[in-house]
Amino acid sequence: MTAELKDLDAFAEVQRLIVVAAHPDDLETLGGGTVALLVQRGIKTFSVNCTLGDIGTQEAHMSRPVLATTRLAETEEAARILGIAQTYNLGHHDGELVADLELRAQIARLYRLTQADTLWTFDPFWPGQIHPDHRAAGQAALDAYIPSKMPLYRPEQFNEPGAGPGCLKRIFLFATDRAPDIFIDVGGVYETKLAACRAHLSQFPQGEANLEWMKELDQRRGQVLGVTYAEVFKQMEVW
Amino acid sequence: MTAELKDLDAFAEVQRLIVVAAHPDDLETLGGGTVALLVQRGIKTFSVNCTLGDIGTQEAHMSRPVLATTRLAETEEAARILGIAQTYNLGHHDGELVADLELRAQIARLYRLTQADTLWTFDPFWPGQIHPDHRAAGQAALDAYIPSKMPLYRPEQFNEPGAGPGCLKRIFLFATDRAPDIFIDVGGVYETKLAACRAHLSQFPQGEANLEWMKELDQRRGQVLGVTYAEVFKQMEVW
Amino acid sequence: MTAELKDLDAFAEVQRLIVVAAHPDDLETLGGGTVALLVQRGIKTFSVNCTLGDIGTQEAHMSRPVLATTRLAETEEAARILGIAQTYNLGHHDGELVADLELRAQIARLYRLTQADTLWTFDPFWPGQIHPDHRAAGQAALDAYIPSKMPLYRPEQFNEPGAGPGCLKRIFLFATDRAPDIFIDVGGVYETKLAACRAHLSQFPQGEANLEWMKELDQRRGQVLGVTYAEVFKQMEVW
Amino acid sequence: MTAELKDLDAFAEVQRLIVVAAHPDDLETLGGGTVALLVQRGIKTFSVNCTLGDIGTQEAHMSRPVLATTRLAETEEAARILGIAQTYNLGHHDGELVADLELRAQIARLYRLTQADTLWTFDPFWPGQIHPDHRAAGQAALDAYIPSKMPLYRPEQFNEPGAGPGCLKRIFLFATDRAPDIFIDVGGVYETKLAACRAHLSQFPQGEANLEWMKELDQRRGQVLGVTYAEVFKQMEVW
Amino acid sequence: MTAELKDLDAFAEVQRLIVVAAHPDDLETLGGGTVALLVQRGIKTFSVNCTLGDIGTQEAHMSRPVLATTRLAETEEAARILGIAQTYNLGHHDGELVADLELRAQIARLYRLTQADTLWTFDPFWPGQIHPDHRAAGQAALDAYIPSKMPLYRPEQFNEPGAGPGCLKRIFLFATDRAPDIFIDVGGVYETKLAACRAHLSQFPQGEANLEWMKELDQRRGQVLGVTYAEVFKQMEVW
Amino acid sequence: MTAELKDLDAFAEVQRLIVVAAHPDDLETLGGGTVALLVQRGIKTFSVNCTLGDIGTQEAHMSRPVLATTRLAETEEAARILGIAQTYNLGHHDGELVADLELRAQIARLYRLTQADTLWTFDPFWPGQIHPDHRAAGQAALDAYIPSKMPLYRPEQFNEPGAGPGCLKRIFLFATDRAPDIFIDVGGVYETKLAACRAHLSQFPQGEANLEWMKELDQRRGQVLGVTYAEVFKQMEVW
Repeated sequence: MTAELKDLDAFAEVQRLIVVAAHPDDLETLGGGTVALLVQRGIKTFSVNCTLGDIGTQEAHMSRPVLATTRLAETEEAARILGIAQTYNLGHHDGELVADLELRAQIARLYRLTQADTLWTFDPFWPGQIHPDHRAAGQAALDAYIPSKMPLYRPEQFNEPGAGPGCLKRIFLFATDRAPDIFIDVGGVYETKLAACRAHLSQFPQGEANLEWMKELDQRRGQVLGVTYAEVFKQMEVW
Repeated sequence: MTAELKDLDAFAEVQRLIVVAAHPDDLETLGGGTVALLVQRGIKTFSVNCTLGDIGTQEAHMSRPVLATTRLAETEEAARILGIAQTYNLGHHDGELVADLELRAQIARLYRLTQADTLWTFDPFWPGQIHPDHRAAGQAALDAYIPSKMPLYRPEQFNEPGAGPGCLKRIFLFATDRAPDIFIDVGGVYETKLAACRAHLSQFPQGEANLEWMKELDQRRGQVLGVTYAEVFKQMEVW
Repeated sequence: MTAELKDLDAFAEVQRLIVVAAHPDDLETLGGGTVALLVQRGIKTFSVNCTLGDIGTQEAHMSRPVLATTRLAETEEAARILGIAQTYNLGHHDGELVADLELRAQIARLYRLTQADTLWTFDPFWPGQIHPDHRAAGQAALDAYIPSKMPLYRPEQFNEPGAGPGCLKRIFLFATDRAPDIFIDVGGVYETKLAACRAHLSQFPQGEANLEWMKELDQRRGQVLGVTYAEVFKQMEVW
Repeated sequence: MTAELKDLDAFAEVQRLIVVAAHPDDLETLGGGTVALLVQRGIKTFSVNCTLGDIGTQEAHMSRPVLATTRLAETEEAARILGIAQTYNLGHHDGELVADLELRAQIARLYRLTQADTLWTFDPFWPGQIHPDHRAAGQAALDAYIPSKMPLYRPEQFNEPGAGPGCLKRIFLFATDRAPDIFIDVGGVYETKLAACRAHLSQFPQGEANLEWMKELDQRRGQVLGVTYAEVFKQMEVW
Repeated sequence: MTAELKDLDAFAEVQRLIVVAAHPDDLETLGGGTVALLVQRGIKTFSVNCTLGDIGTQEAHMSRPVLATTRLAETEEAARILGIAQTYNLGHHDGELVADLELRAQIARLYRLTQADTLWTFDPFWPGQIHPDHRAAGQAALDAYIPSKMPLYRPEQFNEPGAGPGCLKRIFLFATDRAPDIFIDVGGVYETKLAACRAHLSQFPQGEANLEWMKELDQRRGQVLGVTYAEVFKQMEVW
Repeated sequence: MTAELKDLDAFAEVQRLIVVAAHPDDLETLGGGTVALLVQRGIKTFSVNCTLGDIGTQEAHMSRPVLATTRLAETEEAARILGIAQTYNLGHHDGELVADLELRAQIARLYRLTQADTLWTFDPFWPGQIHPDHRAAGQAALDAYIPSKMPLYRPEQFNEPGAGPGCLKRIFLFATDRAPDIFIDVGGVYETKLAACRAHLSQFPQGEANLEWMKELDQRRGQVLGVTYAEVFKQMEVW
């Protein structure tokens, strides 16, 4: 491991982590292993999916509400496997997420309610990001960072029990081309990661056979460290 | 030609090409030569202009609908010269194109109708892109890529004859600062390119004299290959 | 100073400068020294703040209109200190600025009215920009550049006395990670810069003690030149 | 029956009827009996619900997609009972329907596809209409009437098999305070109406006990005719 | 003429009249005769069409910009015939006019520029109004009335030469079911009205043969007065 | 007093009253006397102004935030005089209030928080209502009525202390042309009403001299009852 790369110590000060993703299964496939490791360390983790994932099928005769229902249940099961403290779904339609002021306010509210100190989300500036929902989720998550800390922004949100000004201190991006500097060896929890992914049966009906792409990706990243599987992150400097 | 650069072979597998641009004359000036070469090879090419180009004049007393009408006719003439199979104009106002859900749906519909396997569009992430319509066209074209493939996204679009799930396999960007890796020698069809550009008489009223900037640009790119004129593209990896 | 870096000569041809920022105090902290130098040279400078800055406090019981009122007055005082010819506030709410067609038209109108030849604004493409208002202001300022020059775009704006087609010739970005190439030694006017910043009493109630971060930043940049304080800019090529 | 009131003859020329409602169960409770009578006469009937009805419960722990799924199934069962040829659901969220251009286009498309000659919908001008979705559905249904007939309005809709210019000739309003002039004796099909309503089990879990309000309403209207149960409509003059 | 009905005296104090309509030919068919009479009396009249009228044809192969261009020219010709001082077209698309803040501002600007004292427009509250553009035009025209009088509403509009606070004193509605109380005998100028209508050749290609509906309507209204042709208006009380 | 008219008994069952208005001073001038009477009876009253009233002046050089600040203070003083329990201002801009989903949610939240049983608001269907903000406020207040009662509508609102499902039972409209049926003799509290109005010094700088129009209106209504001053309301039937 070169001097420049960081390992799990990069998250040493994390106590409450919020992950803002676009669809059920994003968290699991992109960072499920690291979540499992952090949960083992006692870190409280919150999962936010902005959309219902309700076009996530190639079956043209599936009903969208049925698919949404299925995926909400799959999300809960995956969260149980990973030890996630709570999941939120913001109810937007898959394929049509927009990083507007409404989405920003929804996410700021969760920063304030969960009192998370750390955010993981999609890099909205990655020019290779072809999924518009991924960009929208990442953009809105970053856009909510500063307003969430300001008492005069949507002040009614402070009335909910436990809410306080946003107190995020660090942001880590996934799905990015900014040179990733954090490589997490997830070999020890890979079975857990796979189980959480398989919980999304609607997406991976043949189980692990549908997850070869992910394993290859994690292996390629593992090679950088000389381990079997790794997940990668890039810290974004914020003030 | 260095090993890293690709030539027309980069498009070897293309059979149906869709070009999403912002204004009449974008396709012609940025890629008209390459289109001419591809059409010679039997590739079916579809041209989409998102706006009417209806502020494209310095004459303050021109009426916008008159200008739009003129430019629609110029587009048809240029398409005839280049051998483009069909042109589409999405009817938005020049200088005010917005990459919203409506534009995304309009473009996804054309991916589904044309069954194009290849897309050319503006790089919306180029920080040097000063024209907001160019960014909007490119962004919406990329944003439509994944939804167009999903059967539950705007399913009524499948009722039109010939429509099927989007089947784009490759995306090539123009007007980009990502290191271009595809250089096409267009010297052999440059007269055709110039003729297609001159068809936009409202834009280039003095003919070739108004196109010196383009010739210089194409020459500069040609120097990389050691040819007279070249056009350049950057392939974007998609999944 | 290396050959690549430019100094105040980079602005040698500027006669009328417009600065599009998001909040009261952006101009002052990011470029107040250089503005002071340019004003000394007789350059007419216009300041545009897109928002009222009305969530800019940690005091939860402050009223937003009171804060806005205070900050409008602070802006005038800072402008007086720097010698800015005129200030504009576009009236949008802090933390919720959106780069939509309305904001674009507001800014294009000011390009046309001020007949500025030079624009300074935020780099909307800086991936490290965490403040959504900064990105929105910069994006709208760039988006307005081309439309402002076209006579058929919002033609009623030409009826205002003194308005003409936009005539911006150069754009300089601040708050950017594109390698800055313009370093301005602002040591000689630093007291003026500090005074302009201190005018924003609502933001820096303890005066210079609240501005240590800025002094450190300007010092770090000064080290590149071997001077005490510097401000930096990046020119964007436009056509 | 007074001279001014019309009976089922008011619908004598109807051949294809489209009903635009807001929620599953609107059609059934407001006009289910008349639909049953018209279907008996061979009239082809199409039912459109603009929303999923996904807040239609007092159970706070119900999931919205589950409720939507349930109500789609209930709608199909009710349609089967009444003999409705086809049902459409436009997928909007209950309690948040907006009569915007998108909804207008969705409804115009169905006028063109079904080639309905007659429309039933909510009176959007009834000042007593307290449900915003009812007004939105009625307004959008009226707003779509003229555009649907114009070939240059959303012309891509004509590509779907069977689509033609809208050919609505008559509009009848329900839930209106404009003096209703059409009273339909639905006593002979009241069991069918009740069965269709009971199919909406999520809304009427205790069956007929939850429908007393409807029976009373229909009885009060029946008294005008001297019959047991009636449904009422108001024809709107259109050109 | 009964005591309740008013004649041309209803307009005795009018000096500058603005008519806000939706499509080219609305003014001419609904009030062209009265405009002709008022112009004879020296009243300065301004005509505003909110849309281009660009779906106003049954010919599916017509291009929308061509139709818009034609109708702008027809509007000028009709204005010449009626003696209208100036026409404005707000450039919106036919069939999709929305009474939003942008349209309100456009209309308020014209109240301020023309310094009209009197407004004619569509009654947006007529429940029988089936054309959505008519309602939108009328609603926006009424919505602009009060803001146009307030100096802090869109204050940049006052910079245009001749602009002042809106000074509308009276509003008259056409296309209304509120009992019309103003009946204007237009028999003496009916040839002028017909000529202005025939100028809209794209709408009435067979000339007067396409205008029988209008003549019948005007005759029916004339019968109330015992004259051949009349136009009707309803004054709306404003404060 | 005729049999049809109701007096203060119309409000006999009211315990918690919410008044949704558009601008500071609407409540005071339209219903201030009745509020004073109800507060005397122990009814808890909540006042909601949707806009800041920040264009409410004829002084062109007034700053909007200064005016907003002034009017917030005036509102508090008037509330003190009338005995209103709490005031809310939703922060929208005067002259540009829109009855959109955001405003609906803001108002629904207050129904849920205040647990009001009775609503007063503007009649949005009054065709004589020329102020667009009045219509928007009234429309949004009615639109929020049903959603506020549904647990799945914006469920996060229930987390605020004291919030519960909306429990409005009655709606009374002011500024309406629906035949008013409730006439309240406000002679006994007219001094209080006048004092509350005079608290809006920015609107009535000459005190009672600027309120003659209101006194005349209230006198005219008083004549129906044979009293000096009355205020009127119309109950809207809701379900």
